[in-house]
Amino acid sequence: MRHEQTGFPGKAISGGFHYSAPEQSKTPGNMATAALRMLVTEMMRAIGNPPVPVVLWNGLEISSNDGNAVARLLIRDRGALMKLVSDPELYFGELYSAQRVEVQGNLLEFLDAVYRVWPQHRQSTTEKNLLSPLFDSRRNSLSGARRNIHHHYDIGNDFYQLWLDERMVYTCAYFPDPDASLEVAQLAKMDHVCRKLRLQPGEAVVEAGCGWGALALHMAKYYGVSVTAYNISGEQVAYARQRARAEGLDGKVEYIEDDFRNMRGKFDAFVSVGMLEHVGTEHYLELGQIIDYSLNGNGRGLIHSIGLNFPRHMDTWTERHIFPGACPPSLAQMMAIFEPHDFSVLDVENLRLHYARTLEHWLHRFEENIERVTEMFDQEFVRAWRLYLAGSLTAFKTGGMQLFQVTFARAGQNQIPWTRQYLYEPHGITSGEHHGKL
Amino acid sequence: MRHEQTGFPGKAISGGFHYSAPEQSKTPGNMATAALRMLVTEMMRAIGNPPVPVVLWNGLEISSNDGNAVARLLIRDRGALMKLVSDPELYFGELYSAQRVEVQGNLLEFLDAVYRVWPQHRQSTTEKNLLSPLFDSRRNSLSGARRNIHHHYDIGNDFYQLWLDERMVYTCAYFPDPDASLEVAQLAKMDHVCRKLRLQPGEAVVEAGCGWGALALHMAKYYGVSVTAYNISGEQVAYARQRARAEGLDGKVEYIEDDFRNMRGKFDAFVSVGMLEHVGTEHYLELGQIIDYSLNGNGRGLIHSIGLNFPRHMDTWTERHIFPGACPPSLAQMMAIFEPHDFSVLDVENLRLHYARTLEHWLHRFEENIERVTEMFDQEFVRAWRLYLAGSLTAFKTGGMQLFQVTFARAGQNQIPWTRQYLYEPHGITSGEHHGKL
Repeated sequence: MRHEQTGFPGKAISGGFHYSAPEQSKTPGNMATAALRMLVTEMMRAIGNPPVPVVLWNGLEISSNDGNAVARLLIRDRGALMKLVSDPELYFGELYSAQRVEVQGNLLEFLDAVYRVWPQHRQSTTEKNLLSPLFDSRRNSLSGARRNIHHHYDIGNDFYQLWLDERMVYTCAYFPDPDASLEVAQLAKMDHVCRKLRLQPGEAVVEAGCGWGALALHMAKYYGVSVTAYNISGEQVAYARQRARAEGLDGKVEYIEDDFRNMRGKFDAFVSVGMLEHVGTEHYLELGQIIDYSLNGNGRGLIHSIGLNFPRHMDTWTERHIFPGACPPSLAQMMAIFEPHDFSVLDVENLRLHYARTLEHWLHRFEENIERVTEMFDQEFVRAWRLYLAGSLTAFKTGGMQLFQVTFARAGQNQIPWTRQYLYEPHGITSGEHHGKL
Repeated sequence: MRHEQTGFPGKAISGGFHYSAPEQSKTPGNMATAALRMLVTEMMRAIGNPPVPVVLWNGLEISSNDGNAVARLLIRDRGALMKLVSDPELYFGELYSAQRVEVQGNLLEFLDAVYRVWPQHRQSTTEKNLLSPLFDSRRNSLSGARRNIHHHYDIGNDFYQLWLDERMVYTCAYFPDPDASLEVAQLAKMDHVCRKLRLQPGEAVVEAGCGWGALALHMAKYYGVSVTAYNISGEQVAYARQRARAEGLDGKVEYIEDDFRNMRGKFDAFVSVGMLEHVGTEHYLELGQIIDYSLNGNGRGLIHSIGLNFPRHMDTWTERHIFPGACPPSLAQMMAIFEPHDFSVLDVENLRLHYARTLEHWLHRFEENIERVTEMFDQEFVRAWRLYLAGSLTAFKTGGMQLFQVTFARAGQNQIPWTRQYLYEPHGITSGEHHGKL
């Protein structure tokens, strides 16, 4: 939906903005130019003065920084500028998607320059709540979670197949070396998780939020465990069940289309990869209770989640348009899952650079399939997803987002690894005889 | 200081304790026996009914648990029983030290049986504060910290030399395998820390709480860095300076007898091994500020500390008699150091079983030198330290205490290891040519 654009210079800034023009610029045209210059300068100052000149619809170029410009920001109409000035975090994404702002130059370099200086990411949760009245209505209650997950994950398996790896793993991969392929890295990630959990043949594993089912299949196939996997995305569960049948693993893996909060039974291990971001910190006590209830006396678990260095909300645009209800936790916030139940945290690994690399692969494949994506959706969708993938890549690269893998066990459980050495020794699955089969 | 013991059966339990004696036991002696039985049963129930029969001064044996007894608890006088009933956590240590209670059988097996069932370790910080009016007066202000540290660390280097390793490292070791010697394991711990910090020759390191100086010397000698090390224990600093001179490293290592809060300068790395336990959670914001101020743009750090699965206080006896002011944090509490300053936590490793093993070595050496320790101090000191070492060993073994090594870096710092593989590859210092020299 496009907003009407006014062609009258100066109109949009009347009523509120007061500017004393210098003597020599008393014509209305000059006043507007000076005012526009001041508005843009203010806006750029608010986002930390990245080395990015701004070019307006009328050709006016404003550069508030003497550094080497990595790209230029083109603002195509006055209404777009007003929106950017009022809330750049929310409106940049909307206006970029609608082609009302454009980045001239490399989008990743532009985002890198902006993310490195923009102080918005230092805004605390409390401040943000005041600014975001919609926030509460999107909470992850049982029905809210289902609606939120449907928004992102049920837009078509065909779409995700265009740019994910062949196993459809839509979470951070683990690259044994940075040049590994995405396929090898997703396989290595699943092994890394299984080995951290020290899965033994015959054990029972419960998975909360199983995506298209790849990890559950991997655990059953290569580690000989039985898996009960929960997911509230109908499209993902249908796909996962089909794959389990095709691989003859439907006796070992049960996919349940339900909320993890309805989980039942006792298990040796709990695993959740890429679900916690959607749970919401206010539900962590409940999540911990469910894990506590689900695990037997020898139980242990692993949670893999996007995280933050300190509590804050996802940027407004991503939260509103891409991932409704998403709320990555800080490590202290994550501890609210474990501490009330006397779980021991055994290991935390931060893999943020691996997520940046994963997103490089996804973005590359997305761009390679750009014509197909445009046919499936439209130009606005393409631009929104390009910005989401590129923005996430940049956030992981510049340290604005983290990826935490947290391994935990019951307090008195001494069947824990003596050191982490074993995780770094060659083993059969990714480096040996199994590898060729996959 | 011994408390007067009353020899009058029944007196100590009058005024508050009401017991309806059965018909056949109406003599005062019988009443007292039944009442004693009930008191002991109550006390044992309160600590979770460990499989430990209790034997009283008069030969009465009370067993509230049918399990296999691992040891018997002998209570030598009525006053001791009353104290145990009123506050077993505080008084067990005092009475054990004074030989008014005795463990008949293996002390470690006794403690293991008790710690596994005793619900006291589930007591929250809030509840404990109410019970511990002395707590506030022992806080770690600049002067309080100095007094508290003096209490434990300045009781004589000669004493610690009897049972620590040759380098006088009084923190959890890292055993590459469980059978490694204590000497090898302390060396491996120092290397593990240095490698996690990725120290490079010529860099400047600041150490907060340096003990007898071994890590600072190790970093300077094998990693070529310059070290500024803070400690408020006068005896430790004197010893450390002497060793630095003896090894010709006094140009590379500066030991400063001062509180870390007075730290000045800019450094490439911050390291603190075994100090955080003495800082107190209320000072973590300040600690984080000091780290933030001390680290340059490429800065990173490591904090190695005893920790807990959830916030609670050290047991009252240890806090009062062994480690005044000690307050190990939960992981969520530790995050109060990092989160306000946008530090990224890169790695957390829980080494609790390594601390249990370290304490086994210390306890063994302590017992081997028991005559010498008794000459230096007295029987009460010997028993208090035996209980402290054995109790700590048991807490780490049964999951009541944790040992966290937390590695962190500035948020935008991308000079971080791609994986942790490098930590598990052979290197020159503990496995190669350097090893023979140490």
